[in-house]
Amino acid sequence: MNNMRIALAQINTTVGDLNGNRDWILAYADRARQQGADIVAFPELSITGYPPEDLLLKNHFIAANLKTLGEIVKSIRGIVAVVGFVDLGKKGELYNAAAVIVDGKIAGIYHKQALPNYSVFDEKRYFTPGKTAGLFKLGGMPFAVNVCEDIWMPDGVFRAQAKAGAGLILNISSSPYETGKCADRQRLIARVAKATGAHVGYVNLVGGQDELVFDGASMIVSPSGKILASGASFKEDLVICDLPLKKKAASKAIVVKAKLGAAKPVLKARDIKPLEAIEEIYTAVVCGTRDYIQKNGFKRVVIGLSGGIDSALVAAVACDAVGRGNVVGISMPTRYNAEETKSDARLLAQNLGIEFHEVPIERIFESYLETLAPEFGKLPFNSAEENLQSRIRGNILMAFSNKFGWLVLTTGNKSEMATGYCTLYGDMSGGYAVIKDILKTKVYDLCAFFNKKEGRDVIPRSIFTRAPSAELRYDQTDQDSLPPYALLDKLLGMYVEEHQGVKEMRRTCKDEKVVRKVVELVDKSEYKRRQAPPGVKISRRAFGKDWRLPLTNRYKENA
Amino acid sequence: MNNMRIALAQINTTVGDLNGNRDWILAYADRARQQGADIVAFPELSITGYPPEDLLLKNHFIAANLKTLGEIVKSIRGIVAVVGFVDLGKKGELYNAAAVIVDGKIAGIYHKQALPNYSVFDEKRYFTPGKTAGLFKLGGMPFAVNVCEDIWMPDGVFRAQAKAGAGLILNISSSPYETGKCADRQRLIARVAKATGAHVGYVNLVGGQDELVFDGASMIVSPSGKILASGASFKEDLVICDLPLKKKAASKAIVVKAKLGAAKPVLKARDIKPLEAIEEIYTAVVCGTRDYIQKNGFKRVVIGLSGGIDSALVAAVACDAVGRGNVVGISMPTRYNAEETKSDARLLAQNLGIEFHEVPIERIFESYLETLAPEFGKLPFNSAEENLQSRIRGNILMAFSNKFGWLVLTTGNKSEMATGYCTLYGDMSGGYAVIKDILKTKVYDLCAFFNKKEGRDVIPRSIFTRAPSAELRYDQTDQDSLPPYALLDKLLGMYVEEHQGVKEMRRTCKDEKVVRKVVELVDKSEYKRRQAPPGVKISRRAFGKDWRLPLTNRYKENA
Repeated sequence: MNNMRIALAQINTTVGDLNGNRDWILAYADRARQQGADIVAFPELSITGYPPEDLLLKNHFIAANLKTLGEIVKSIRGIVAVVGFVDLGKKGELYNAAAVIVDGKIAGIYHKQALPNYSVFDEKRYFTPGKTAGLFKLGGMPFAVNVCEDIWMPDGVFRAQAKAGAGLILNISSSPYETGKCADRQRLIARVAKATGAHVGYVNLVGGQDELVFDGASMIVSPSGKILASGASFKEDLVICDLPLKKKAASKAIVVKAKLGAAKPVLKARDIKPLEAIEEIYTAVVCGTRDYIQKNGFKRVVIGLSGGIDSALVAAVACDAVGRGNVVGISMPTRYNAEETKSDARLLAQNLGIEFHEVPIERIFESYLETLAPEFGKLPFNSAEENLQSRIRGNILMAFSNKFGWLVLTTGNKSEMATGYCTLYGDMSGGYAVIKDILKTKVYDLCAFFNKKEGRDVIPRSIFTRAPSAELRYDQTDQDSLPPYALLDKLLGMYVEEHQGVKEMRRTCKDEKVVRKVVELVDKSEYKRRQAPPGVKISRRAFGKDWRLPLTNRYKENA
Repeated sequence: MNNMRIALAQINTTVGDLNGNRDWILAYADRARQQGADIVAFPELSITGYPPEDLLLKNHFIAANLKTLGEIVKSIRGIVAVVGFVDLGKKGELYNAAAVIVDGKIAGIYHKQALPNYSVFDEKRYFTPGKTAGLFKLGGMPFAVNVCEDIWMPDGVFRAQAKAGAGLILNISSSPYETGKCADRQRLIARVAKATGAHVGYVNLVGGQDELVFDGASMIVSPSGKILASGASFKEDLVICDLPLKKKAASKAIVVKAKLGAAKPVLKARDIKPLEAIEEIYTAVVCGTRDYIQKNGFKRVVIGLSGGIDSALVAAVACDAVGRGNVVGISMPTRYNAEETKSDARLLAQNLGIEFHEVPIERIFESYLETLAPEFGKLPFNSAEENLQSRIRGNILMAFSNKFGWLVLTTGNKSEMATGYCTLYGDMSGGYAVIKDILKTKVYDLCAFFNKKEGRDVIPRSIFTRAPSAELRYDQTDQDSLPPYALLDKLLGMYVEEHQGVKEMRRTCKDEKVVRKVVELVDKSEYKRRQAPPGVKISRRAFGKDWRLPLTNRYKENA
């Protein structure tokens, strides 16, 4: 029995930032080495960032990634590093790969075998499945390397690797967050550990990339399925743990020539408590929003504050993401806005401590009506006039964006995005749609969580209690057009997140008319969603890369 | 030696319209039967329409498609029909399948083996590769069935099928158009025929589906590679041809029990001349635009007419797509619009014979400036004010759309979409971006083609000769911000359509600064493209499903 000190570096890479990722990998390798680690593992594709998408189709990008790998190899000393990169095969094929690096050399390379091509994943678009063994030996102790999806397949490569003698399985992942996935992963890794009788080190990416957010929550699990050490959620971390591994024969293993750290004092393993469900979602949204803003070079953001619950949540998230000094709220009332909502917008801004502007748009609205009067004549007020107000607001926010270089955050929630209860080029205008994957009922929960976290009613109580309204005509409420949100959200969960049909939805709602109306609203607003900005995915199925419905689509269930 | 009469039904299906597609399949089967055909083949997935995308993830959709297949099977009499559908395997897996139907029964089913997962295709997201032989026998003559990509693979299933005795290979396809692809297909099919010594019947879908347009151009090719009969491009057609086939042993072939039409008079084969290059592109754009409009239930369209070449082309295409009586042009001048462009917009509308409105937006623009004056103070005029004008125009067009139910067609070309020389929520507002895949230089060619086709200068000469300008400030021309279009378009072809890099582009343009500027413009405008409406794909790589670049992306070649 011997001792090996394992480090999992859950770092926040940026797609395409090869030099930045390189420097960060080297910095963490250094930290791990200073803490006496024998091996440090980095997330999947840590050199390129994840997912690099069609950058992978550019030859010069692949070449640059290999050059960067070479630079990393040259600089790694005194520790074994497992680093994710894109490998180029002899026939030009690409592999999602892990290099095992030591003292200026690559000891061996593993090629990912299980390539996910469902949900948000398109890995078969780019990669060829690997055939390498991924089996290594350090100080006489065999260990294995594989990549993300490899460990999710019931008959994955990890079984063969354990059978061949690996006492430790290192899985490097870039596994995007969705609600409850952290617990799923813990169960999975425990199952793999028990099934193989090996220790498992699971290192996961951290940070936001467009619509995806990666939660880290790396872990080291014992053969009995016990979590020995775990990493923070949604924050960079270096997880270190001493593992008792056996020297063993493993005939085909690549020998990694490195000395194990001699006589290290034994580390106390660390176990981080998982976040509560609502805090987990809130933190995911903050993390995804912060990274979208900052990785795209923005410092300040601007938000249209309506006095409603959605923009309140977005403003709260923005404050936690980039600091209240970098958040600007703008209220843009017309004749249809009640005094109460206007004052709530102002009060919210005061409570949050953000810059606040009031830009009444009544005059602009009138100029449109006058200009269009000769064209529209006496036709009744309809969505044309309603949407104009929303579009004027979108224009004002974009004008601030163009004038000052601020990013516009949109405020639409998932219930609105699903049903089309939103205006294209209006309230949908902006660079990032912070809460587009959060159903309206959950918006209230998150606002309540925020107030609780802050220890006071930062978001005024009246915003919670007032009936939601778009205020685009007099006496309008959302429930004039939509079923009650509690019911709507349940049905949307079934139809959108589970792809269930009318038959199943009728078990939840007896009124077939309501069910059919919800289905029709979702189906008919595909064209709006297609032109929507990205936003943090937190659910099983978000309106993003995992929602690829045709625009032209005449399908109706049981038509 | 025997005779078999083959019919290829290149029909225009609609995604999700199961009943409509069923009726259309039955109508064409009837026509083919009346013309004495023994076999009629329909395009890939003709029951569901192509591509059904994530509709395939809905269980009820798969069930409905199987039910529709059953209805078709029941109604097919007196002819063998090969129909594309989605088959459901025992473990719930899906196959992209072809059913061989005769006299109320399914004789056999073939499952597509080669699943494209590149470019615009995501078939591995949905389907499992098949293992069926696809070998059938009719009147003692063996023939084979396979699906689209199967025939593009050098070692595709067609080799085994021919070896097993098939004297005819029927390939049912839904192969989207791109420039020059029709000629590629003819070479491919000739190669397959020669390599196998079999006749090949290739039937392809027709019509538009979101960004894709299918050109038909079905063909029947002799074993020597000669085209015996071919179908029209971009139009429905029924291609019929008599083939001399041999009775032969083919041990594993499924016997299709049907009588061959006795003593039919021999048909004269038909050979349709392919379209000229520029006509082909023009026709593709018209077809894609027409189908997007009509399949989505619109009758009339509205277009912002600037007096420039892009909106002129879009208006021309719209007239050919839905008829001039269904096209409305709106000119929306400000202080920055020259008299000449205003009068050209009007003249174009007159020449086309379309409804024309002039809606000056100066007053609205002023109301924005006044409203924003307290906020912007003395900050200089910049993109904020420029974009406002474009956004006001977008709003006006959308107001017409909301008031009258017309679809807004946008007018941006590919050079603009590539470089970001367009305004999000401004000129990018609309349901369909007719020319988004057409580079500016090609826009001129297409306009010249249109005038030639019409036999007069419907698009006024002055629109061709005036320097392009967005007219969002005084004395502005596109070339203030962009390299000359002839050079720009060449570089965009390399960077966008071929994914080439700076090194290769410098062979075309010695000035590295210009090359780097083009690359930077393209990279920086990804966020605009992400929110753009769909438009007809005509190039090898369009800004649509075959362009999946990350928004957050710090990659710079040789940084």
